Amino acid sequence: MKPVIVVHGGAGTIISELHETYRSGVKRAAMKGYDILRQGGSAVTAVEEAVVLLEDEPIFNAGHGSVLNEKGEIEMDAIIMDGRNLASGAVSAVRGIANPIKLARLVMEKTDHVLLTCEGASIFAKAQGIPEVPDEQLVTERSRNRWRENLKECPVSVLSQKGLGTVGAVAIDSEGNVACATSTGGITNKMVGRVGDTACIGSGGYADNAVGAVSTTGHGEKIMKVVLARLILHYMEQGKSPEEAADAGLNYMKSRVDGTGGVIIVNNSGDWTFKFSTKQMSWAAVKDNLLHSGIYLGENEVLPIEKKK
Amino acid sequence: MKPVIVVHGGAGTIISELHETYRSGVKRAAMKGYDILRQGGSAVTAVEEAVVLLEDEPIFNAGHGSVLNEKGEIEMDAIIMDGRNLASGAVSAVRGIANPIKLARLVMEKTDHVLLTCEGASIFAKAQGIPEVPDEQLVTERSRNRWRENLKECPVSVLSQKGLGTVGAVAIDSEGNVACATSTGGITNKMVGRVGDTACIGSGGYADNAVGAVSTTGHGEKIMKVVLARLILHYMEQGKSPEEAADAGLNYMKSRVDGTGGVIIVNNSGDWTFKFSTKQMSWAAVKDNLLHSGIYLGENEVLPIEKKK
Repeated sequence: MKPVIVVHGGAGTIISELHETYRSGVKRAAMKGYDILRQGGSAVTAVEEAVVLLEDEPIFNAGHGSVLNEKGEIEMDAIIMDGRNLASGAVSAVRGIANPIKLARLVMEKTDHVLLTCEGASIFAKAQGIPEVPDEQLVTERSRNRWRENLKECPVSVLSQKGLGTVGAVAIDSEGNVACATSTGGITNKMVGRVGDTACIGSGGYADNAVGAVSTTGHGEKIMKVVLARLILHYMEQGKSPEEAADAGLNYMKSRVDGTGGVIIVNNSGDWTFKFSTKQMSWAAVKDNLLHSGIYLGENEVLPIEKKK
Repeated sequence: MKPVIVVHGGAGTIISELHETYRSGVKRAAMKGYDILRQGGSAVTAVEEAVVLLEDEPIFNAGHGSVLNEKGEIEMDAIIMDGRNLASGAVSAVRGIANPIKLARLVMEKTDHVLLTCEGASIFAKAQGIPEVPDEQLVTERSRNRWRENLKECPVSVLSQKGLGTVGAVAIDSEGNVACATSTGGITNKMVGRVGDTACIGSGGYADNAVGAVSTTGHGEKIMKVVLARLILHYMEQGKSPEEAADAGLNYMKSRVDGTGGVIIVNNSGDWTFKFSTKQMSWAAVKDNLLHSGIYLGENEVLPIEKKK
């Protein structure tokens, strides 16, 4: 099987001054995951490492750079899923760590559970030797300013849409195993303890070797109401192509709950796609030593990459 | 539309001395919900009130009587969903309140969010005027003893199965609206912050007027991996009857992740069913002024109920 990785840096509206920073981030994340895959690494490790890079980039709303809740604090959600056996790990509303996706993987591999929340997740992180990181190191000036503006301007419900920008990855490795990973700071000025789609298996992502893998982004509450990732895989099980299934899923979310968002998909034959019903979504993908990327509707920049010696 | 309600008191193994207490609880819960429905109440209120009764009964693993986490504390999950518009509210790992299902309904109706966790859920509960209840009032001697025995006996992974006993309800009201509600203390001696299927939309329950409503019980981690409630509704969308869909869903969970559990279902024509792959499940249902109930496989006791004057 030829390895494939697809990543996204969130669906929403991206101001033009930041386009190059977003582009550069998703391209590097896709390349990092692809390098793992072409060296024989697993899909799970590829999606984890691609997401770690995006969590570490302050421009994205995950890990460093996460948006702030109504109290001005960071609470993060993340999920990882292994298509070989439906194993999954997730964390919700976790604080004070740099890479929630790494903690999600440890939940999957080191516990009998699927989801740990809040202090329980922090206690587990500490037991696993993950260093505590104070909010000052995770909060960017941009997140702080946005939070401050939202506080004075108008109610959360209107402005929360601005906080989109979840990151995610899907991959298939040389053995035909698929995986997904998604990580987010949630929505700006959210209530303390708000958990969105990302931590919720079937909503923020799903991976099953029998079909493929999906990672989602957009308005979390809407994504949850239609269990978007699993819905799209159901459509694929019924015979739809990844493109058709993505369109059907996004259309369903629009018509049932008036929601917008974006998805990345790889199926178990290595076909991949991205779709979004928002204005923009930053994304990148690598297959056959070609790096694809884009932000606008219809955009697909293709660059050859150096072959591994 | 003739109103219908179905409730469950958890799937697993129920020791025979407790059978009558379980039976009596689920019957009273079903009757409480049915009384609301035949007075013209909504499906959402019927499932909420049926679950409140089960949360208040110390024999069930939800609200008062919840099992304890590894530290000997109670952390509860609950979800409610309204099939009219896919509105949903949930809480995870919430502490110190008597009725998590009431808080889940307030999340659905009073916030822009779907899921609140931990202290965030507690802060919201306080703001909504829900009284704080100390753990001493929620912990039963039975839960405390079980926790103590598990601590000394053997690892969590083996004994956790004993902690099953989630409660739930599904209903259709006279206007043809469906709803589901599920509430649980989770699994005995779980890690602090463990969240199971119950709080996770599509896993612990799902309700959609276009199809029907489902509430699940069983090993939460297995239910999450197959997103069981939404899976069963997908089967129904594809033309399966509630019985066929329940069997297909439980078989799928068994074959893919070796999981067992139970489900209750009502479709949007008012057909209802219950199925379980565990040894037992306490359940009750009312339709056409007939109260059905059972615990064992194949058992269906039918009693006429007094007609409303």
